Amino acid sequence: MVLRETSQKERILHAAAELFARHGYHGVGMSQLEKAVGLQRGALYHHIGNKEALLYEISVSQLRVMVESAQKISAAFSDEEERIRALARAILRNIAEHRLEWTVHYRDFNALTGERLRDVLDLRAQYERAWLDAFHTGTAKGLFRSMADDVAFKGILGMFNYSYVWMDQSGRVSTDTIADMFCDIILSGIRPPQAVGGSSA
Amino acid sequence: MVLRETSQKERILHAAAELFARHGYHGVGMSQLEKAVGLQRGALYHHIGNKEALLYEISVSQLRVMVESAQKISAAFSDEEERIRALARAILRNIAEHRLEWTVHYRDFNALTGERLRDVLDLRAQYERAWLDAFHTGTAKGLFRSMADDVAFKGILGMFNYSYVWMDQSGRVSTDTIADMFCDIILSGIRPPQAVGGSSA
Repeated sequence: MVLRETSQKERILHAAAELFARHGYHGVGMSQLEKAVGLQRGALYHHIGNKEALLYEISVSQLRVMVESAQKISAAFSDEEERIRALARAILRNIAEHRLEWTVHYRDFNALTGERLRDVLDLRAQYERAWLDAFHTGTAKGLFRSMADDVAFKGILGMFNYSYVWMDQSGRVSTDTIADMFCDIILSGIRPPQAVGGSSA
Repeated sequence: MVLRETSQKERILHAAAELFARHGYHGVGMSQLEKAVGLQRGALYHHIGNKEALLYEISVSQLRVMVESAQKISAAFSDEEERIRALARAILRNIAEHRLEWTVHYRDFNALTGERLRDVLDLRAQYERAWLDAFHTGTAKGLFRSMADDVAFKGILGMFNYSYVWMDQSGRVSTDTIADMFCDIILSGIRPPQAVGGSSA
């Protein structure tokens, strides 16, 4: 039975993500991969090119999904707090569903070179920009107090990004609940001290 | 000229941390390490044992420093907000100074096995407990609102732990300023809504 081209490729990507997440990108040889997917080197190269191309596909797949999702969210929510809450739910949901891919991404995307590395860094910057826009616009509107440095937002993003380390799909609380909890902390944490609620212009 | 035993070992650990941080633990061979430190395998084994022992030493060295620091801070500050601020400054300072070691730690400590892995996990738990104690005691005293789940604190710790990714020693703002900024966000974020300042009850 011949698998369709795409599902064959998906199967290879998943097996590679599992191996890379467990042993690290540099710790996995092509022969290990051949064995895991039951394909010979020629067939493997046909589907995915070389090992770095595989790391690239894994590192970039969910990041692309998140960039697209962030753009939709930015367009859909004009209220900055709502926008941040939606971005938070989307990323935690995705990390819980694709923990392997994010583990590979965060641990090893730096092993990429040239065009591929530039592409990943560019997508990461695009994704971060959606969050930064929400924070900056919210600050300009007086919803949030102004921060001494954008590094504050790096830290906030870290709360979400780093979750691939401890995220447990079978966890006691849903990712939406976690996202809401994080946002409750962050949003009350960055609100100007005088704003106790209600709309003061 | 013969280097003292300890400085020889420190030199090896630093070279290994640099190589592991760049290529990943699994991506570095013993021969690469021999070349980097200018020692033959026999001498290398004499100083550090095998490659996993090296990963263990690197993963554990700053974590041990932080566990000790956290215990001192916990004993020194009875006020929970002050304690959290001190823990925050200490970890960010240490990550900035030992970014290589933390990169290796976070990326590859899972490659450790048996006793060594248990030891690292135990130290991590001890370190986290210092933070959790501050949050839990502060909550019990009514300084902080109670959280639906301890996962909230995982996220807060993630703000700090994940900083090894973006931390830049030559950054525009000092690590103390960053720690204070993060704490301003977190502490106002977890304060009970009615507490606008001043001592009630």
